[in-house]
Amino acid sequence: MSNAVTTDLAAYAAAARYSDLPDAVRREGIRSIFNILGCTIGGARHQGVDIADRAMQGMTGEGRATLIGRGRKADALHAALINCLASSIYSFDDTHEQAVVHPSGPVAAAALALAEIRPVPGQALLTAFVLGVELECRLCKALTVPPAKGSMAWSGTGITGGIGAAVAAGSLLGLDMPTMRTAIGIALSQAAGFRAMHGSLCTPLMPAQAAQTGLRAALLAQAGFTSSPAALEGRYGYLSVFSEQPDLDALTGGLGERFEILRNTYKPYPCGIVIHPIIDACLQLRSQHGLDAARIASVAIQASPGAMALCNNRDPKDELQAHVSLHHWTAVCFIRGAARIQDMDTETAVKDPALMAFQGRVEATLDPARGADSAKVTVTMNDGRRFTCEIEHGIGSATRPMTDHELEVKFSAMSVPVLGEARTRALMDQCWGGAELTNAGDLARAAS
Amino acid sequence: MSNAVTTDLAAYAAAARYSDLPDAVRREGIRSIFNILGCTIGGARHQGVDIADRAMQGMTGEGRATLIGRGRKADALHAALINCLASSIYSFDDTHEQAVVHPSGPVAAAALALAEIRPVPGQALLTAFVLGVELECRLCKALTVPPAKGSMAWSGTGITGGIGAAVAAGSLLGLDMPTMRTAIGIALSQAAGFRAMHGSLCTPLMPAQAAQTGLRAALLAQAGFTSSPAALEGRYGYLSVFSEQPDLDALTGGLGERFEILRNTYKPYPCGIVIHPIIDACLQLRSQHGLDAARIASVAIQASPGAMALCNNRDPKDELQAHVSLHHWTAVCFIRGAARIQDMDTETAVKDPALMAFQGRVEATLDPARGADSAKVTVTMNDGRRFTCEIEHGIGSATRPMTDHELEVKFSAMSVPVLGEARTRALMDQCWGGAELTNAGDLARAAS
Repeated sequence: MSNAVTTDLAAYAAAARYSDLPDAVRREGIRSIFNILGCTIGGARHQGVDIADRAMQGMTGEGRATLIGRGRKADALHAALINCLASSIYSFDDTHEQAVVHPSGPVAAAALALAEIRPVPGQALLTAFVLGVELECRLCKALTVPPAKGSMAWSGTGITGGIGAAVAAGSLLGLDMPTMRTAIGIALSQAAGFRAMHGSLCTPLMPAQAAQTGLRAALLAQAGFTSSPAALEGRYGYLSVFSEQPDLDALTGGLGERFEILRNTYKPYPCGIVIHPIIDACLQLRSQHGLDAARIASVAIQASPGAMALCNNRDPKDELQAHVSLHHWTAVCFIRGAARIQDMDTETAVKDPALMAFQGRVEATLDPARGADSAKVTVTMNDGRRFTCEIEHGIGSATRPMTDHELEVKFSAMSVPVLGEARTRALMDQCWGGAELTNAGDLARAAS
Repeated sequence: MSNAVTTDLAAYAAAARYSDLPDAVRREGIRSIFNILGCTIGGARHQGVDIADRAMQGMTGEGRATLIGRGRKADALHAALINCLASSIYSFDDTHEQAVVHPSGPVAAAALALAEIRPVPGQALLTAFVLGVELECRLCKALTVPPAKGSMAWSGTGITGGIGAAVAAGSLLGLDMPTMRTAIGIALSQAAGFRAMHGSLCTPLMPAQAAQTGLRAALLAQAGFTSSPAALEGRYGYLSVFSEQPDLDALTGGLGERFEILRNTYKPYPCGIVIHPIIDACLQLRSQHGLDAARIASVAIQASPGAMALCNNRDPKDELQAHVSLHHWTAVCFIRGAARIQDMDTETAVKDPALMAFQGRVEATLDPARGADSAKVTVTMNDGRRFTCEIEHGIGSATRPMTDHELEVKFSAMSVPVLGEARTRALMDQCWGGAELTNAGDLARAAS
């Protein structure tokens, strides 16, 4: 039986070095780490993270790995789980442009936790992170992105996050090809997660579980555990169960030449990504014309099919419903002039009477030809004046990526309430210069 | 969206009590616990268990749960993982008569670990264990046993062990229906494992992972975590991803009336169960006719579809491959006249040149109509004589179950080298009387 596919991936992951990474790839790696670190801090005090941490009280090791933004440390496996749960819990993390996967969460959580207990330089962390994201995204593309055929029922991040975490951890541990292949096999054998869990805490638990099992897979492999060398392509193997027709070229073609991290995108707003161009339009209208929400008679939105299918939900009752309500966010934009976590993370924030009342003046209609990153918003004032804004490509889309400055604004909004101004500024600078760190574990420690 | 399936199972598991269990069910529950406890002790010092325990050194809690047969304690989540790994590592555990699942490992490991940190009487442990096994086996039947249609690529125990562990732990924790349903949902969302891992340590790691995630699911649910109430039947839910056509009646029909544990079987030989009737036939042929292996020209085996699919593997290189090699065990039977752990647990035992040479004379052919507990073996001697033995139902099959005495012989063979004669005898007696224990955690502690 051939094991060429699994072997090719393991060989690449075991051999690649920092010097092999193009500048643009290094830069996007840093931006991805920057973004996910901010999201981890932002989610660290979410009730769901508290519950998970509390449920395992007394069952974790003392360890030296930081539970980011939570003011204590634990063993690296628990830290990988909790930190990834935090980074995913608001769905504010990153998204691959083609495959439905949120790449950074499991990879960063595993790599950072390991870097704290086994010191490595920043270049090693960045390399490990890029490699993990690379294999994770390739695998996810190979399952479902045409010409591949596969079921959308699986959680992309749940079932591919583990290979990303294992490869990143394996790279940091310096595993050779056969041991890396074993780590990949162990991680794949524990790949799990399906979409019925949407709207529950199991959704962020899936990447968290992938982070933990991926890190553990690398540790097990290093210690001498075994797996099938043909975990991917073997009979009854990973590819056979997770895709009707996998695309092997997406998986192994051009390794070291094309890099999936260049297709990574970041979200400026903590809500369903199809709402984003609507928010861009509303915020632009408000600031350009100095609009007073109290004098707005109506808001007419021409929305994309995706926005209408997923987010045409008026009057949400809680955070999870608010996450996918374009009416909620339109009201938030005009009334508060921003779109932040604190605009949805409590029932009080969601059920604010001013927001509820405003939503009655918002009407969305389907524009079948409109792309998912596009929207047109027309405001009619009580005095009859009209203002229109059309967004062709929303901020954070592949065509209009978030700038470094926009990433800083996003990071700060999440980090300042937890770490304060000064530590947030220092952490952001440390992160931008991550490749120069002598000890990459400092990143997590600085975010304790 | 309906959630009647998940709700029915959760309601049954939350409500069922010891007094609801028929005597025969209680008795088979005890026999299952007895058997798996012996297997746990027998596997506790396997190198694969050492590797896993060592790989996580410093990453586990101090805890009070026994690592059975290993002389130390750890946190309950680690104990569930390690004890289940030990119980599964020789594939010497139990097997459901219809569904391809080894029921007791994940359920017992989760329940015993929890019973040590949250004391419960023996009746509660036995009830929790029976309920866990019940839902696990029902789910596995519902996926693939006709009229259900499903892929054999999944690891039955990997993908259903978690619900068993979660239900057993949930029962011990006294979860109410909604919380039990949440525990079930969390566990299912982490269900994983496929068969390409056969012959590697990932095979016992799959049930071990199920034990740990199942126990954790119950703890998370108790602490307030959330999942979909329709984890099984929901759109993009568990049943949709793990079966082409699930059999809902197998899952929820006759709850509390028919009990799957009555279809549990125990193995007299430490190898793939589909090889067992072949071993019975070979041992009978050898002893009845006083056959000398050196004078055997060929062995022709008419094997069941299961034996051919899983175990038609010549020339294994190590213990894990030997597990699933019908050629290996045929050679062992004719050359050594027995089929024991020591016939496979070292490379020396597996690569014995006499065994390797003999395997070249063994040929298995598919008999599509043959049941999994049946085999026909024909030996042709160098002098042309022929002997045939047909086994309709092998020892340890549902039709010819192992007796309590045979279970004691099996238990002792594994336990005496670890605990000694006296402690083994005391532990066996304690286990037979398990329902009368004031503190069920004593069982694990007595096997430390």
